[in-house]
Amino acid sequence: MGDHGSKADGPRVLADLNALRAFGAYKTGVHRPTFSKPHIQSLQWLAKKLPEAGLTAEIDGIGNVFGTSAKLGPKLLAGSHLESQNFAGWLDGPLGVIYALEAARVINTDPTVKGVVEVASWCDEEGHFGHFLGSRSYVGDVSKQDIDAARDRTDGRAMRDALQAGGLAGRPRKTAEPGRHIGYLEAHIEQGRTLEGSQLGIGVVTSIVGIWQFQIVVTGEQNHAGTTRMKDRKDAGIAAARLCVAIDDRFPASAGARTVWTTGRITLDPGAPSIIPGLADVLFQVRDDNSEVVERLEALLGEIAAEISATSGCGIEVKQIRTGKPAMMDASFQRAIAEAASIFASGKSLSMPSGAGHDAQVLATIMPAGMLFVPSIGGISHHWSENTDDADIVRGAEVFVEACRRLLSR
Amino acid sequence: MGDHGSKADGPRVLADLNALRAFGAYKTGVHRPTFSKPHIQSLQWLAKKLPEAGLTAEIDGIGNVFGTSAKLGPKLLAGSHLESQNFAGWLDGPLGVIYALEAARVINTDPTVKGVVEVASWCDEEGHFGHFLGSRSYVGDVSKQDIDAARDRTDGRAMRDALQAGGLAGRPRKTAEPGRHIGYLEAHIEQGRTLEGSQLGIGVVTSIVGIWQFQIVVTGEQNHAGTTRMKDRKDAGIAAARLCVAIDDRFPASAGARTVWTTGRITLDPGAPSIIPGLADVLFQVRDDNSEVVERLEALLGEIAAEISATSGCGIEVKQIRTGKPAMMDASFQRAIAEAASIFASGKSLSMPSGAGHDAQVLATIMPAGMLFVPSIGGISHHWSENTDDADIVRGAEVFVEACRRLLSR
Repeated sequence: MGDHGSKADGPRVLADLNALRAFGAYKTGVHRPTFSKPHIQSLQWLAKKLPEAGLTAEIDGIGNVFGTSAKLGPKLLAGSHLESQNFAGWLDGPLGVIYALEAARVINTDPTVKGVVEVASWCDEEGHFGHFLGSRSYVGDVSKQDIDAARDRTDGRAMRDALQAGGLAGRPRKTAEPGRHIGYLEAHIEQGRTLEGSQLGIGVVTSIVGIWQFQIVVTGEQNHAGTTRMKDRKDAGIAAARLCVAIDDRFPASAGARTVWTTGRITLDPGAPSIIPGLADVLFQVRDDNSEVVERLEALLGEIAAEISATSGCGIEVKQIRTGKPAMMDASFQRAIAEAASIFASGKSLSMPSGAGHDAQVLATIMPAGMLFVPSIGGISHHWSENTDDADIVRGAEVFVEACRRLLSR
Repeated sequence: MGDHGSKADGPRVLADLNALRAFGAYKTGVHRPTFSKPHIQSLQWLAKKLPEAGLTAEIDGIGNVFGTSAKLGPKLLAGSHLESQNFAGWLDGPLGVIYALEAARVINTDPTVKGVVEVASWCDEEGHFGHFLGSRSYVGDVSKQDIDAARDRTDGRAMRDALQAGGLAGRPRKTAEPGRHIGYLEAHIEQGRTLEGSQLGIGVVTSIVGIWQFQIVVTGEQNHAGTTRMKDRKDAGIAAARLCVAIDDRFPASAGARTVWTTGRITLDPGAPSIIPGLADVLFQVRDDNSEVVERLEALLGEIAAEISATSGCGIEVKQIRTGKPAMMDASFQRAIAEAASIFASGKSLSMPSGAGHDAQVLATIMPAGMLFVPSIGGISHHWSENTDDADIVRGAEVFVEACRRLLSR
């Protein structure tokens, strides 16, 4: 296809993204939770588009969409996800899927490239029913029992019922074919302000940070807020507040430059105005791409908990309830993205870790993986007002397609 | 009735309390929320009992039960409440009602006493539908609109529907007749450990503390817990935790000897593990019987909030959402109780404020009022395991009846 086929078609990318935006449109964003009607429609829309790239479409038994080719030669897998958080942004997921579709359209019909881009849309990256269920199913990490047990976190609907309603029940789940792909490439909006703040166009992801999620349970003595004197109290709520403050005061000295930690929820039981809380439940997480740093912080968390337990008279139990290991992005993938950015983004790229989780971290467990970021306006994420400038979207597509070409041409 | 009529009949008091315990029995306590079937049954049971004391029974349009007498002479009003907190204790409320019934049975038939004890059971002291609705209705502080708007805090049932279902709709509400009573006397379990800890039998209540209830709203910036660096955050949850800790550290220097303060609930919004809370909502209360102390603490709370707002970058708004003024118990009532305790409790009585609210604080706004406490085992309150030794129950009844006699004989 000559000149036209050699690079991304910006207007076509924007048109496709806007077509997807219509499924579950909400204000300037979308409400397209996993297995909702607009989500199923978006999967079907993609399946109809894939033949444009010479790919055979398939929606599998967990709602992953694949576009595969029978051609010989090296194959690169590219993709992202199509469902959204509730009432959230239009690009979080679809951007990476349309970039992959565009790369396949450009490269699979370009006789100068010997390989093929295959496309994947991973189901439920946003975790309505679980935790990277689609990509984890593909790498063989989701059992039948996991699916039997999964429920929509918003309305409690069983995943089996949702699959049935979406017309996906009974279909096989597709799993990775060892050696089929040279690797996996994913694009995503940054969800932060780093690129925007430095007026850069492309983020070259070096790693996806791990998430260490803790549940901290503080046990005091529930009692009447009027009749129990201050000296006689074992207030689980105050002990929990002291714990959060001590973490915030003492973590910086032991943390890495990009370590982040967050107390997302504090629940006091029974939570009534006139009752001294007998129990506090704290959801606390640490993210870093260096496990050693987090191990150091975990030890410090234990020390802090022991100290506050001793002074408050409350029991404090720190339970690690989930760990998502950090994932390193492949060096040659990083290089291909940086080279592509030097051509299409005037070299305005930055190597950076991803603080958010992505399907690429799951794919990285079985093949080389890479990611690129485009800027987010104001860093807004998981909100319907999330957006990226059209010029940044087009530039990202050009870099993505060029990176795919370079990876297949090595 | 001679010797028998001159003092409380302990076995009769215990039998009546155990009869009430059968309505809504739950483990060793009761589940008898306002206008539940067992609650309505308990009101009817009391109405049937009142004629034993020469009283005419009436259940009014808000579920108050009154036992009134047409006799001339001084009249003392005595009572408490019959509903319970959910799955709570058997004596919290019924003790004071049965003591009042017993006092009426003993005194109203004793020719040596010139006056009469009238009995009241106040509806919804436990606040299922509002806030001291029964006693406040009696003193003229509850409007028709208040009742129209009231809903069960547990299941949202409209109070009008509950009154209808209980057979009370359309009945008039009885209000206080000015000058009818020389005052109001109420007995209650202590709901604390002071009497038990000092091996005392009777608490002579000096005041009922006021409750200043605050809602503190902290406004930060909701953001992604992975992609937002620590230095870029305005974390409403951490600011709220710092506020709670600063209160606990700095209030003691400005508080009175018996001031208590409690953070009963902290709600972080949206409350998800991977989202930096943009909003924190804190329910905080202060109780004291001295308004000046609380005004000083309120000013300090404002200072602390301003300091933490400045250092955290979060907005902090402190709203006073409710104030229950402290109520002083009448000196002559305190004296009568102490004198009665010197006869029937070997003088083992203690003057003490009540940290919990009681209907007596509402009645105290229109007439002299007094309260006596009996010990609570382990200070347990608002839990089905709440209990008091039979010997303490009987001793309390004897002191209560004697205090009534002394108040009517002045």
